[in-house]
Amino acid sequence: MSFAPGPRRDRTASDGLLALLRNEFGEAAPSGQPRVLGELEQVQIPAAEPIAATVIEAAGGSEAFSDAHEDRVRHATGRSYPDLVRLRSGVLDQAPDAVITPAGPEAVAATLRACAASDVAVVPFGGGTSVVGGVAPLRGRRQAVISLDLARLQRVEVDRHSLTARLGAGLRGPEAEAALAADGLTLGHFPQSYQYATIGGFAATRSAGQASSGYGRFDDLVTGLSMQTPLGPVATLESPHSAAGPALRQLYLGSEGVLGVISEVTVRVRPVPARRRYEAWMIADFEAGREACRALAQSDLLPDVLRLSDPEETRIALASSTGGGLARRAFSAYLGLRGRRSGCMVIAGFEGSGERVADRRARAARVLRSHGAAALGKAAGVAWERGRFDAPYLRDTLLSIGVMAETLETAHTWSGLQNLYEEVGAAIRRALSDSGTPGLVMCHVSHVYRDGASLYFTVIAPQLGFEADDGGAAAIGPAIGQWSAVKSAAAAAILACGATITHHHAVGSDHSPYLSAEVGDRGMSALRALKASFDPAGIMNPGKLLS
Amino acid sequence: MSFAPGPRRDRTASDGLLALLRNEFGEAAPSGQPRVLGELEQVQIPAAEPIAATVIEAAGGSEAFSDAHEDRVRHATGRSYPDLVRLRSGVLDQAPDAVITPAGPEAVAATLRACAASDVAVVPFGGGTSVVGGVAPLRGRRQAVISLDLARLQRVEVDRHSLTARLGAGLRGPEAEAALAADGLTLGHFPQSYQYATIGGFAATRSAGQASSGYGRFDDLVTGLSMQTPLGPVATLESPHSAAGPALRQLYLGSEGVLGVISEVTVRVRPVPARRRYEAWMIADFEAGREACRALAQSDLLPDVLRLSDPEETRIALASSTGGGLARRAFSAYLGLRGRRSGCMVIAGFEGSGERVADRRARAARVLRSHGAAALGKAAGVAWERGRFDAPYLRDTLLSIGVMAETLETAHTWSGLQNLYEEVGAAIRRALSDSGTPGLVMCHVSHVYRDGASLYFTVIAPQLGFEADDGGAAAIGPAIGQWSAVKSAAAAAILACGATITHHHAVGSDHSPYLSAEVGDRGMSALRALKASFDPAGIMNPGKLLS
Repeated sequence: MSFAPGPRRDRTASDGLLALLRNEFGEAAPSGQPRVLGELEQVQIPAAEPIAATVIEAAGGSEAFSDAHEDRVRHATGRSYPDLVRLRSGVLDQAPDAVITPAGPEAVAATLRACAASDVAVVPFGGGTSVVGGVAPLRGRRQAVISLDLARLQRVEVDRHSLTARLGAGLRGPEAEAALAADGLTLGHFPQSYQYATIGGFAATRSAGQASSGYGRFDDLVTGLSMQTPLGPVATLESPHSAAGPALRQLYLGSEGVLGVISEVTVRVRPVPARRRYEAWMIADFEAGREACRALAQSDLLPDVLRLSDPEETRIALASSTGGGLARRAFSAYLGLRGRRSGCMVIAGFEGSGERVADRRARAARVLRSHGAAALGKAAGVAWERGRFDAPYLRDTLLSIGVMAETLETAHTWSGLQNLYEEVGAAIRRALSDSGTPGLVMCHVSHVYRDGASLYFTVIAPQLGFEADDGGAAAIGPAIGQWSAVKSAAAAAILACGATITHHHAVGSDHSPYLSAEVGDRGMSALRALKASFDPAGIMNPGKLLS
Repeated sequence: MSFAPGPRRDRTASDGLLALLRNEFGEAAPSGQPRVLGELEQVQIPAAEPIAATVIEAAGGSEAFSDAHEDRVRHATGRSYPDLVRLRSGVLDQAPDAVITPAGPEAVAATLRACAASDVAVVPFGGGTSVVGGVAPLRGRRQAVISLDLARLQRVEVDRHSLTARLGAGLRGPEAEAALAADGLTLGHFPQSYQYATIGGFAATRSAGQASSGYGRFDDLVTGLSMQTPLGPVATLESPHSAAGPALRQLYLGSEGVLGVISEVTVRVRPVPARRRYEAWMIADFEAGREACRALAQSDLLPDVLRLSDPEETRIALASSTGGGLARRAFSAYLGLRGRRSGCMVIAGFEGSGERVADRRARAARVLRSHGAAALGKAAGVAWERGRFDAPYLRDTLLSIGVMAETLETAHTWSGLQNLYEEVGAAIRRALSDSGTPGLVMCHVSHVYRDGASLYFTVIAPQLGFEADDGGAAAIGPAIGQWSAVKSAAAAAILACGATITHHHAVGSDHSPYLSAEVGDRGMSALRALKASFDPAGIMNPGKLLS
């Protein structure tokens, strides 16, 4: 059985991975014996509350309704670390009472109306890839809770002249790309969740893809959207820009299902690039790398993809198989030539016509070289591109042998970035050490702007309590406690630095305790007033964002 | 006396301008005898309501308070056509009861608190350049109304490393640029109101400058802001991006003083460009011009400034002195060479390093030529640049001889643009003809995006009723009636086309009847809920945006 978001099953941990873990964690390293998981049917969930017939009818009748055990389990979690730990234990203490899959936007609206009348909470469900508890089946003070699966919202309508496309919320990343490719177009939005996440989810969470500096974050790409609320539909004009008051589109974006269900999104699209060139560079240290990224952004020479790993992430990437043998050899050569023991890897990717790629690459290369960077060549870049969606699968492999792998991200101005990097890293290391395990804390700059950048931290440590019960139900408490200590330490450090609690993972339930520190009490009051205006019955995604 | 926003007085209409008007309007053309305006002290305004001592004290005492006649007149209007007609008549039926000029953000907050307690409406006042009734001294259901002049909010704090600047709301365009220039930086925000408009006003109205395709619209430039509300301050993080829920920054931007007073804004800035190159091109017709603009935008080759005039605007620009003698000769040569009688003028401006300007200009020129455009050379471009802030002064000159000059703007996708152009133009011509005057209706594309563009219409016609009373009080009714017919016909056509009621002039009081058609009833309810959350007493800028 695999709960990974896809067809691949847990992979057996490779000898290389196990050796790396032994090297890092010493005696605390896992044995490597994977926990044998039960089948989906064996996962225990609470009995379902009955759902009012009016809700089922509004949704479209029996073909839109399921309270089957497997469907309820599949909609009971997202992909956060606590979600995966609970799922693997075989015992879930919450699940939606039913899964409803309406045929179109009108059926969504009718379902919401009926749910408001019947005191049923609604959790919108796209790809189920939230890593912050965004699809947790919380009922709040409602009688029951349904998971509203948007898979049947599949509209595709391309405006080739304006280079925009109106897309149904239920289209997964690859489905949207396939539909656009028929017109020679691409959305260019490739977050790590791309293979499963949906258009509606991208909009509801302000997703940012790996090529965001070239194509734009998802919220940048949206020119209009429709949202179904318990009081009926709302829509924004499809317009390149408007000065007609506060930007309601920017209110619906990022609303994470607490105001309503985003049903359709109009996005800017681009011609499929004729050429892609991804390559890796090495640079002396994180500071030099950041300065190179800053120089590229501030001189309008940003590659479409730009990532900078810190020394620890660079070391691990090159020690593991992900970096590729060629990259490892190039890295060793780089260090040898310079008499250094460490460096930072940069991934730079350019897309477009052959001429533009060559021209932009040449200008950017000049900037990188002027900051002391050395090219490792295309092979390492290609290896990164090939493995760009692999991390979630690797995480499943690690989980199966009792290793916690968690990621968290933030952003700040260039002036605030070094302090943020140091403080958050130190806070995580302290939390791991306090909980009594060794750990790896790695970081990369993943999204680069003229005024600042995001920082993406990866934390890997032996899972507390795993060995005692082989990852079973008794292991949940210690594992979540360990995660929670890391998470809250990182959040406290982020807020103390005046940085955002999330650059692109969104708020969900995991970050909701910290939102008021970011937007202030009056900001929270405003958001609550807006929610009351669209959802007076309080049925929309309880416990998320504003809880 | 001049009510123009600046030191220049009404200029005498030149012989060329009068000949042009005679040519266009025939017997309906004005005689050219300017109405002699009275002094500011002679403008009649209503007696002032007393302002509570607690308000004056909260604002900072007598140095922050004035109920002098001249100050009240100066804060009684913006620069909309109805405002100017009324001001020139010498009789205003409304004026603020006092003008309050707090020393800093804390004094603003204290003033708002005191006003809420004393039932005093507050109209935030920056440069007073609103062309949509944004600073009209409306008291709504409050006892009295003050104009809150932000001129003393002058903070400047530059972060050279992050290329951002924190700027006080009261800084006028040239003041902000002068402060930034000391660090070799520029904001690059040059709307036509630039010489008088303020940072706070730019943010509150979602202003767009003439170089928006290069530097970004003002709302694009903002990375953080502080707003004082009757309940206290709110602020957003200064962050390159955040996925922490709905973007509150985007709700405060464009809020036009109905939620609170924007007191400070952090914006992205750029190094002052080493080189500027502005030039004019001619292209066969409006459709070919639009296609050239679309091609530039969709292939990432946009100049920093890009404008395309329709045949009528091109004809008038070249017939008047604004276009410059060289441009006229170049235009005639262009038409002669091609056996044509008309064409459309394109202004393209590039800024940056010498190398980047030359490179970008060469690529853009290839695209323009491939659409049949011919270069008129730099002289015409330089003439445009020199006259870029002149239109408001020309409008004053026209008003003084009884000619209405009004502008209005909208935006749409490329697919919707031709229909929008035709329908709005036809609606304005019909309204003018119905009111019994000839008229000139001109249009240009002023802001260009990948997915669409804005359309900026200029309407010039003999002012109804002017001759009867030489522009005095009895002439107000017919003049406003004529304007109102044009305005409502244009608005109806815009909304019928599914376009936005304003691309960058904002809503104010003039567009507020149309906002609900754009955002929908539920959007309006959300905006009202938002207002109630920040301004429960309803003192902030009554009658604007949400009226």
